[in-house]
Amino acid sequence: MQIGANYGADGRCVFAVWAPGRKRVELKLHGSEEAFIPLRGEDRGYWRVALENILPGALYTYRLDGRVERPDPASHSQPQGVHGPSQIVDHGDFSWQDDDWRGIEPSRMILYEFHPGTFTPEGSLDAVIPRLDALREMGINTLEIMPVSQFPGDRNWGYDGVYPFAVQSSYGGPRSLKRLVNACHERGMAVILDVVYNHLGPEGNYLRDFGPYFTDKYKTPWGQAINLDDAYSDEVRNFFIQNVLFWLSAYHLDGLRLDAVHALVDMSARPFLQELAETVGEYSRRTGKTHVLIAESDLNDARLIAPREAGGHGLDAQWCDDFHHSLHTLLTGETTGYYADFGRVRHLVRSLRDGFVYSGDYSTFRKRRHGNSAGERRADQFVVFAQNHDQVGNRLLGERLSQLVDFESLKLSIAVVLLSPFIPLLFMGEEYGDPAPFLYFVDHSDPDLVKAVRDGREEEFASFHWKGTVPDPVDRDTFLRSKVRWELREQGRHKTLLEFTKRLITLRRTIPALSHLSKEHLRVQGREEEKAIVMERRENTTGSRTLCIFNFN
Amino acid sequence: MQIGANYGADGRCVFAVWAPGRKRVELKLHGSEEAFIPLRGEDRGYWRVALENILPGALYTYRLDGRVERPDPASHSQPQGVHGPSQIVDHGDFSWQDDDWRGIEPSRMILYEFHPGTFTPEGSLDAVIPRLDALREMGINTLEIMPVSQFPGDRNWGYDGVYPFAVQSSYGGPRSLKRLVNACHERGMAVILDVVYNHLGPEGNYLRDFGPYFTDKYKTPWGQAINLDDAYSDEVRNFFIQNVLFWLSAYHLDGLRLDAVHALVDMSARPFLQELAETVGEYSRRTGKTHVLIAESDLNDARLIAPREAGGHGLDAQWCDDFHHSLHTLLTGETTGYYADFGRVRHLVRSLRDGFVYSGDYSTFRKRRHGNSAGERRADQFVVFAQNHDQVGNRLLGERLSQLVDFESLKLSIAVVLLSPFIPLLFMGEEYGDPAPFLYFVDHSDPDLVKAVRDGREEEFASFHWKGTVPDPVDRDTFLRSKVRWELREQGRHKTLLEFTKRLITLRRTIPALSHLSKEHLRVQGREEEKAIVMERRENTTGSRTLCIFNFN
Repeated sequence: MQIGANYGADGRCVFAVWAPGRKRVELKLHGSEEAFIPLRGEDRGYWRVALENILPGALYTYRLDGRVERPDPASHSQPQGVHGPSQIVDHGDFSWQDDDWRGIEPSRMILYEFHPGTFTPEGSLDAVIPRLDALREMGINTLEIMPVSQFPGDRNWGYDGVYPFAVQSSYGGPRSLKRLVNACHERGMAVILDVVYNHLGPEGNYLRDFGPYFTDKYKTPWGQAINLDDAYSDEVRNFFIQNVLFWLSAYHLDGLRLDAVHALVDMSARPFLQELAETVGEYSRRTGKTHVLIAESDLNDARLIAPREAGGHGLDAQWCDDFHHSLHTLLTGETTGYYADFGRVRHLVRSLRDGFVYSGDYSTFRKRRHGNSAGERRADQFVVFAQNHDQVGNRLLGERLSQLVDFESLKLSIAVVLLSPFIPLLFMGEEYGDPAPFLYFVDHSDPDLVKAVRDGREEEFASFHWKGTVPDPVDRDTFLRSKVRWELREQGRHKTLLEFTKRLITLRRTIPALSHLSKEHLRVQGREEEKAIVMERRENTTGSRTLCIFNFN
Repeated sequence: MQIGANYGADGRCVFAVWAPGRKRVELKLHGSEEAFIPLRGEDRGYWRVALENILPGALYTYRLDGRVERPDPASHSQPQGVHGPSQIVDHGDFSWQDDDWRGIEPSRMILYEFHPGTFTPEGSLDAVIPRLDALREMGINTLEIMPVSQFPGDRNWGYDGVYPFAVQSSYGGPRSLKRLVNACHERGMAVILDVVYNHLGPEGNYLRDFGPYFTDKYKTPWGQAINLDDAYSDEVRNFFIQNVLFWLSAYHLDGLRLDAVHALVDMSARPFLQELAETVGEYSRRTGKTHVLIAESDLNDARLIAPREAGGHGLDAQWCDDFHHSLHTLLTGETTGYYADFGRVRHLVRSLRDGFVYSGDYSTFRKRRHGNSAGERRADQFVVFAQNHDQVGNRLLGERLSQLVDFESLKLSIAVVLLSPFIPLLFMGEEYGDPAPFLYFVDHSDPDLVKAVRDGREEEFASFHWKGTVPDPVDRDTFLRSKVRWELREQGRHKTLLEFTKRLITLRRTIPALSHLSKEHLRVQGREEEKAIVMERRENTTGSRTLCIFNFN
């Protein structure tokens, strides 16, 4: 069942919503004459009505059992924010110019992660378009957008979204995202969107009024887990599977980054992630385009990206935190928090060879064995980075590497990422060593929630023993301070670093031994005392060979 | 680290206990001079001391941080019950007579499940020995003993055990189980023990005083889940893995039935069940004997019994509730509770072909899709039954089939089980149609707990709409009424049924088409209107063929 408000081929707008425990569901169309139109109850708790003469832009809500009035959980637009009415969007009225676009294979991707609110002064998706040529010119071919689903207030990292189908109004809403994706495709660039299926934000989440989207059985860092394996979980899954298909079809996105899949607790015989992967695989076959699913996971579990035949979930790739931690500790010497498990040359050597460092080894930080072997998984199934929104933003002062290490080390960090046999990801501004912090910011309206957020941040930092005061997440200035200073890329050392980054990407793209991602044609040796790593990469059909020497002294 | 109190080769007794949060752990040896002997803290929170001159039978407890005194979580014997001191057992002093015993392959097993307390008037493990010849004579070759781990009081199904390494004192304690196993092996019979790793009972569970055995992250029907994937879970797993090895080595058991593995919530990259299966596989290779792990699971997830190469956990077999429900509903016409998902001939046909009926199909009872395909799993990986302790005992009045259907239907029920291509299991007394109920009984001392148990039973029956009063679980008479009447097997129709059962087992063992368990050499057709099933089984090397016609009219 397709949920949300969608125009059919006959021009009628079909409203469909899942509310299995309700006896009555009515549609309220906002406007001059407010009327309540009953939806008809269908199988499995769905309610549905098809109406003529519904104009794009119309506002609506649902009334449940004649009492509770709520926006649509599958709303495509929330122009008045998370508590306001939902808005009808006609996805047929956009002139896509990307008919020939077929996507990019993961092995070719060079990812650039950005946060729409802080990447530009305007903080909109449209404002990114004028920067695309510069990004493409430096060799970036895939954007990764931090979550855009409607969240409370005007500023947020995006992980507090509560309308998974709606593009944040302060980012410019639905058309803004389409314009950006279209502009990327016109330039031969792919776009991946970060989506959050493990929880909904704490403000404006009305899902519980509609149905059992959550379960008491499992707890996550954000409270109750999403109900993926209990009664009614088929329909909860449908909500998120529809969401995946929605982003790929209505917005032409090339893939999704699945946030924190370790919090998708699921004991079912048919794992939700496997179902997602099958859905996207089927969609890619049908459309003849490449679409990717990339997981963020704290499990070091190679089954996520193993093929179905090997009992895996069949996702395309996953983020590799072990690579980051190995590199970060060698560069900074930090040893607190989860960095306690890293810090030796051999850690980075192992990650360069395999992906995971912890493959069943005992972790001091976790106080248990961690992970399983990634040995059988391909090199192009791991996304690696020296920086990302989490690793920068989840520091007390949100410092980028540019504020933690010297200039030569910055160059080294980018080199290790771009010369690695994995999929590289740069975090906005990293390419020129932007000095701005990436701080944690929210814009909640509930004072209790604001206090909870402040307390939560302090707790998060406890194991790191960082010194200083947590910048106030609610202060607008915390958000403004996090904006990158794009103009710096033309200046002094920033320009030097940018040229260095460009040069590395060119090497990566033009030398077969570097563009060919493979664990087999790779030799990595480390010297603990000299803090040095020697990595040889080969490509056999051309006979191409490269030798990279990384000196951490 | 081997936990518990174990004699070493040098005759010293090594006491080892895991208590990671404690600053001081002392051993108290009970007796004339009571002294506290300090244990030495070792890696990962273990405490250890090796002492000379410790006599078997000595009683001991641990004192934690000088304040809390507790029995040993890995106690081998609790002669004074769950709250009393632990007792030293010398496992070297038993004269095993089973040197040549190598075990029985699952495909040959004919299982007989019994509850030690109600199988004999004495209610002990020793009292079973005189019945072994009769069981063997009827063709039973494998006993399955309901849990024997020390539980509160003198009577319990066994799922409230709180000392996983101790044999219930009222069943006769450690030596009693050894005598029974030895007597079985002498007769060519294997013994499987039901073990409970998903929870501990509600009374006498002192594990929390020792360490984080439980986690808040997941809830099970019995409260907090066992900590299998969080900090310190390596040591929690070690407790249970040691337990598996203990039963196999100290008691010569041939395998374990793992209770309710769906409640072992585990998001780790290396699943606990996989670790268990590897441990037992390794032990079997080392000893040259067959040992089996059979799961009870509510997930219909064939990955439990799939091999490692296919991404499975590698358990040997699992109980197949779908087979029971299909058969039970055809025989009784019951449609309430979980029986709502069954009742048609096609259900039993599908189970006879595949094992699972629900392989991703929507379940009305569960309100979601259920299971995945068992198609690739061998026939000898499913244990089937027309009755077992749960299916009989979890009825309001604990009625066996003998009280629910007529005599011809009883014969039919046994025939379907014994002629199926799966591993058959009979429940004590089923072979002669014992009329005794198998009721739920406990012997707790805490009045609040007694009330909770009573309320819990009523709740459990709600979805079945059974009429009547729940027999009081605490009343000793409820226990006594559940004892089988072994003498009936020589009388009237009971004798007729027993002869029928024997005859079926003989057919199963002597006709190649029946003894050869295979899904490939099998054809099953059902006729819904006639309520009939035709099953053809073949064995190709001998050319043996059988045609079974089951008439449910």
